[in-house]
Amino acid sequence: MHPHRLAKALPLEAVSLHDAFWSRYVQLVHEKVIPYQWEALNDRVPGAEKSHAIENFRIAAGLVSGDFHGYVFQDSDLYKWLEAVAYRLTTHPDAALEAQADAAITLIGQAQQPDGYLNTHFTVAQPGKRWTDERRKHELYCAGHLVEAAVAYTQATGKRSLLEIACRFVDHIATVFGPEPGKKRGYPGHQVLEMALVKLFHLTGEARHLALASYFIDERGRQPHFYDIEEEARGEKGHQGYFEDYVYAYTQAHLPVREQKVAAGHAVRAVYLYSGMADVAMETGDESLAQACRTLWANMTRRQMYVTGAIGSQEYGEDFTFDFDLPNDTMYAETCASIGLVFFAHRMLQMEPRGEYADVMERALYNGVLSGISQDGERFFYVNPLEVWPEACAGRHDHRHVAATRQPWFGCACCPPNIARLITSIGQYLYTRSQDTLWVHLYAGSELACSIAGTPLHLRQLTTYPSEGHIRIEMAPEAPCSFTLALRLPGWCRAPRLAINGASIDPAPLRREGYAMLQRLWTKGDVVELDLPMPVERVWGHPALRSGTGRVAIQRGPVVYCLEEADNGTNLGALAIPREAPLETTTALFGLPTVEGPALRLREGPWGEALYASAPPEAESCRFRAVPYHAWGNRGAGEMQVWIREQGR
Amino acid sequence: MHPHRLAKALPLEAVSLHDAFWSRYVQLVHEKVIPYQWEALNDRVPGAEKSHAIENFRIAAGLVSGDFHGYVFQDSDLYKWLEAVAYRLTTHPDAALEAQADAAITLIGQAQQPDGYLNTHFTVAQPGKRWTDERRKHELYCAGHLVEAAVAYTQATGKRSLLEIACRFVDHIATVFGPEPGKKRGYPGHQVLEMALVKLFHLTGEARHLALASYFIDERGRQPHFYDIEEEARGEKGHQGYFEDYVYAYTQAHLPVREQKVAAGHAVRAVYLYSGMADVAMETGDESLAQACRTLWANMTRRQMYVTGAIGSQEYGEDFTFDFDLPNDTMYAETCASIGLVFFAHRMLQMEPRGEYADVMERALYNGVLSGISQDGERFFYVNPLEVWPEACAGRHDHRHVAATRQPWFGCACCPPNIARLITSIGQYLYTRSQDTLWVHLYAGSELACSIAGTPLHLRQLTTYPSEGHIRIEMAPEAPCSFTLALRLPGWCRAPRLAINGASIDPAPLRREGYAMLQRLWTKGDVVELDLPMPVERVWGHPALRSGTGRVAIQRGPVVYCLEEADNGTNLGALAIPREAPLETTTALFGLPTVEGPALRLREGPWGEALYASAPPEAESCRFRAVPYHAWGNRGAGEMQVWIREQGR
Repeated sequence: MHPHRLAKALPLEAVSLHDAFWSRYVQLVHEKVIPYQWEALNDRVPGAEKSHAIENFRIAAGLVSGDFHGYVFQDSDLYKWLEAVAYRLTTHPDAALEAQADAAITLIGQAQQPDGYLNTHFTVAQPGKRWTDERRKHELYCAGHLVEAAVAYTQATGKRSLLEIACRFVDHIATVFGPEPGKKRGYPGHQVLEMALVKLFHLTGEARHLALASYFIDERGRQPHFYDIEEEARGEKGHQGYFEDYVYAYTQAHLPVREQKVAAGHAVRAVYLYSGMADVAMETGDESLAQACRTLWANMTRRQMYVTGAIGSQEYGEDFTFDFDLPNDTMYAETCASIGLVFFAHRMLQMEPRGEYADVMERALYNGVLSGISQDGERFFYVNPLEVWPEACAGRHDHRHVAATRQPWFGCACCPPNIARLITSIGQYLYTRSQDTLWVHLYAGSELACSIAGTPLHLRQLTTYPSEGHIRIEMAPEAPCSFTLALRLPGWCRAPRLAINGASIDPAPLRREGYAMLQRLWTKGDVVELDLPMPVERVWGHPALRSGTGRVAIQRGPVVYCLEEADNGTNLGALAIPREAPLETTTALFGLPTVEGPALRLREGPWGEALYASAPPEAESCRFRAVPYHAWGNRGAGEMQVWIREQGR
Repeated sequence: MHPHRLAKALPLEAVSLHDAFWSRYVQLVHEKVIPYQWEALNDRVPGAEKSHAIENFRIAAGLVSGDFHGYVFQDSDLYKWLEAVAYRLTTHPDAALEAQADAAITLIGQAQQPDGYLNTHFTVAQPGKRWTDERRKHELYCAGHLVEAAVAYTQATGKRSLLEIACRFVDHIATVFGPEPGKKRGYPGHQVLEMALVKLFHLTGEARHLALASYFIDERGRQPHFYDIEEEARGEKGHQGYFEDYVYAYTQAHLPVREQKVAAGHAVRAVYLYSGMADVAMETGDESLAQACRTLWANMTRRQMYVTGAIGSQEYGEDFTFDFDLPNDTMYAETCASIGLVFFAHRMLQMEPRGEYADVMERALYNGVLSGISQDGERFFYVNPLEVWPEACAGRHDHRHVAATRQPWFGCACCPPNIARLITSIGQYLYTRSQDTLWVHLYAGSELACSIAGTPLHLRQLTTYPSEGHIRIEMAPEAPCSFTLALRLPGWCRAPRLAINGASIDPAPLRREGYAMLQRLWTKGDVVELDLPMPVERVWGHPALRSGTGRVAIQRGPVVYCLEEADNGTNLGALAIPREAPLETTTALFGLPTVEGPALRLREGPWGEALYASAPPEAESCRFRAVPYHAWGNRGAGEMQVWIREQGR
C-alpha cells in the first residue's frame, strides 16, 4: 500500500446527482421503497409477512408488552432504513420524513439498556443470554448497522442523538470484547461492525473506535478459537446450528485474515469483512492487511465472480465454493453480496486507484445490484440467477431458493433496505480525491463541489451514460489550479476518445492503471469531453468456466444483456447465436437500448416423440432480442438466460 | 391389451448363459458380491458400516437380546440376498451356499410371530406400533422382498420353508388390509409387494394372492386418503416426516393409478408400482390398467429418462420432476431405479412385445444399471451421474449425494443387493414365449431349453454382443415344428442383416414392431444369422432437453460412451467434437472397444488472469477417447461427461 496514493471518497453532500439513469432509481427509492419499508417495519403492509421490527423496539423499551418476533437480526432492518433515510435527507431534505426518523431514534434510545447494550432480541427474548453466541446471534452485526445509520444520520442532519446511542453501545461492546484480560476474545459472527467503526472513527476522530475495528480484524480466526470457547461456555458440543460442517469458514474465521488466500464462506459476510479489512489497512497503513485484501480480491473477482458482478455460488451457506464453480441456475448471487462487493471495490479504489476495482464496482452496480429491484421499485430479488427456467424454480428442490419473479418483501428482509441505502448514497461512489488528484470512477450526470489542492472546485458532469458513452465535464475551480483529473477508462472500452476544450488528445500516453491522468492548470470554463464508444460486444468466459463454455454473453458498455422469454419465446436453450452475426442496438426498454441479431433455433416440431435420436435436431433461422440483465423479469414471468449458446463453436 | 399377445418370460432354469459379457458379471456376483453381502449382513466386514440385519433377526427370534439397528427396511437386505442366492443356486448349485441360506431361512422363521407377522423393526423396537404408519415404515415393502425371495428360493431348490413363512405373512397381511369392513384400506408405502404377489400367484395358483395385489393397485390414491386416516389414527397432524410438501405424490398415491398420466414421485417406488400394475393387468386382462401402464411408460421414457436409461431427476425425494428436466450432475439416477425400469420394461414386453420396451430395457441394462457396479465387483454407485466434476461433488452441497467414485457399501444398502439379484437372474430377460412365437429380446451367448407349440426345443445363441453385433442362432427342435422366431431388431441399428441357413433374407418385410418375425417350419440344424452393424453413432437429445442442447452423446450398439479424465485430462467442458469428425473404435477397455476421434480443446494457457474477456478463447486440435459409460470410474477418480459439446453447432 502506498499511503500517498490513498484517494478518499467525498462526502455525499458534495455530490448532487442529475442523472437520467440513476436519478430515476433514487427517486423510486425515495418515493416508494423508503415509505414502503416504513410501513413494513410497522407491520402495516396488507398481505406481507410481518416484520415486527418496530414492535420489538416498543416491547424492549417497555412501552408495550409482547414477545419478540422475527430474526435475531431484525433490529438491523430499522437501522438500514434509517441509513437510507439519512442519505435521502442529505440530498433531498424532507421534514416529515425526518420527524418519522427522529421518532424512531427516540424509540431506539428507549430500548437501549442502562449499560448501553442495545438488541431487542436479547432484551426481550433472551435477557440472560447476551454475548453468549456471537457466531450465530448477530448482536455485533446489529450494532454495526446501528453505527452506520448513526454516522449517516449525523452527517445528514447534524443531530447527534442516534450517534450518542451508537457510541454508548460501542463503548459497552469495548468493555465486553478485546485483548485485555477478562474480556471475551470474540469478533462479529456476521461482519459489518468493522467498517462501521472506521466510519465512526472518521466522524469522531476517537482512536478507540479504530482500535476496536482493528482488534476485530486481527482477532478473527485465531487459536484457541473463539467459537470453541463460546461453545464450551454454553455447555454445548459439536457446534449446533446450521452449517456444522464448516463452522469456521462460513464466517471467514477459519484462519487469521492475513492467512486467507481464497474468498470463502457466506458471501455477504466475506465482502463486508474484506471491506472492513481495507478500511483498517487504509487507516493504519498495515501493508500485510492490504496485501490480504488484494489477494482475496484477485481470487474473488478472477475466479469466483459472475459476469453480472454477482458472487456466492451456492445456496448452502449462501457461500463461495471454489474456483470456476459458477453455475447459472443454482447459485445464490445475493443482491446484498453484490452490494458488499461494491463496498469492497470502493474501498480498494480508495486504497489504490486502479481501473480493475472500478470496473468490478461498475459491473456489480449496473447488473447484479440493480437486478435486485424491479423497475417500479416495488419488488425485489434476493437471489439473482443468470438462467431461469420457471418450471425448475417451481419443481426442483435444489432451485427452491431461486424465485422466478421478484417478490414483494422478504421475511429476512436484508436485500431491499440494502439496495435502498446503496442507491440513495450512489453519489458517494462517483468521485474520490487524493492530495493532487480528482478521480472520476463512475459516469453519471452530477455536480461536484469540493476543494482540490487547496482550491474550491465546482465540477459538472453531463452524460446519458450508460445509454450512450459521451461524457462532458465542465470544470470551474474558484481560481486557476494545477491538479490531475483522473478519468476512468473502463476496461470494457476499446477506443476511448478525449478532448480538452475542443482539442482532441490521445488518451494512450495519459493512461495509468485504467485512468487517463489529465494533469494541467485547470481554469474555469475548461471542458473535457470523453467519448467511450459502446458497440455491442460479445463476452466469453475463461476456458475453465464450465457454465460458460460454448456460450457467449452480450455486453454493451457496462451493461450485461440477457435473453427473455417475453422476446424470444420458451426454451431459450434452443437458441444459438452465430459467432459472426452482427449485433445491433434497437428499441429502448426501460431507458436503455435492447440488442438484436440473427440466431438459430432448434425446431421441436419435426423432432417427433423420441427423447433421443441418431439424427440431429433441425435448426431454423430467427432473430433474437436481448435486454439489459438488470431489467429482466419486469414483463411477466418467464425464462431468462445470460450465457447464450454460440453457434459455430 | 390383447391377451393373445401375452408373451411370458421363461423360467431362469430354462436358460443357461455362456456369454463373454454377462457371464463375467454373473461370476463377479457369485464369487464376490454374494459372499461379501453375507459378511456385511453379519457385520463381519472390517471398516464397513454395520448392517445388523442378521442380528436384528436373532434378536426378534429371541436367540439373543439387544436393540434393533438400521433402517426400518433393514430386513429387506437379507431377503434380497436370499433372492440373489436363489438365482445363483438355480444356475450354479452350491451345497455350502445353500446350507448358509437354509440357516438364514430357519432364523427368519424363528423371527416370525405366531400370527404370521414378520418384521424385526417392529417386533424388536416398536412392538405395539405394527401397521400404524405404512406411508413411511416399509412393513409391506419388506414383505414384498420376502415373497420375492421365497418364490425364487422355492423355484431354485424345491424347498418350501421360506415359501411357507412368506405365505403365512401374506395371509396375515390379508387379515389387516383389504376392502372388507374392519380392515385397513391401506397399501404399500414403498411398492414391491404388488409384483411379488403376482409372482406368488404364479407359483401357488392361489387366487387370493392375485386378489391382494389387485386390491393394493386399485386402492392406491383413493379418497378418503389412507395416509390421512393413518395419520389421524396416530394422533399426528401435518404429515410429519420427510417430504411433507408432497406426501401423496412421493409414493404415487396422489391419484388412483388409472388417473396418473405422468411419472411422479420417488423413482424406484414408481417403477416398482408400474411393474406391479403391468403384472396385474396381464393376469386380469384389465385394459384400463394396461392403458395406464402405457401412458406412464410413454411419459417416463420419452420425457423423463436419461440417455443411459437412468431415471430420477432430483435428490429430493429421489424423484421424478417434470418433462425434459434431466440435469447431468445433480440428478439422482439411482441404480435401483434403472433396475426397476428393467422390471417394468420386461413386464411391458410380456404384455405386448414391442421393440421400444426392449430398447429401453437394453439401454438401462448396459448403461444405468451396470454403471452401479465396479469392474471388480467390490464397489457400487447408488447415484449414477452423467457428468462428474469431483471438486463439485466435494465442494457443493447440492452435489453432496453424488459420489465421485464408487463406494464399498452403503448404510442404506438397497442398490448392491438389487444389482446382485438382477445380474444373477439376467437369463430371465433374454427370451419370452407366446403360444406360437419365441421372442429373442436380448442378445447374449446362451442356450435355451423350452417347448414351443407343443414341441421341445433347444436353441443355442452364439454372439460376442455387445462387443460385436453378429448373432448366430442354432435351432434344435425335437421334431420339425412350425412357429415364429421373433428376433429383436434394436432401435439403434439402422441396417440389420439376416440369413437363414446361409441364405440372406431381407428383414424389412418381416419386421413387426421392432422384431423380425421368422415364421417357418423349424428343423434341427437350422441356423439363423443376424448381423447388427454397430458403427459408432452420435446421439442427440430432443431440442427441449436443455442439458443436451449443443451437445452430443456417443453410442455404439446399446452401449453409451463417455469421456473420462483418465484419457482426456481435466476440464472436459473445454473439449468439443466437430459434427463431421470421424469416430472410430480402438483399443478395448474391460472387454469393449473404446472410441476415438478428433476434437478441439479450449486452451487455458493463452487466456491469462481474467475470468471474462471480449476475445474468445483459442482452441487447439486434439484427439479424444471415449469409454463405455458403465465402465467409467474404474481407473481412479476424475471427471466424466456423457453429453459432449459439439463444435460447429
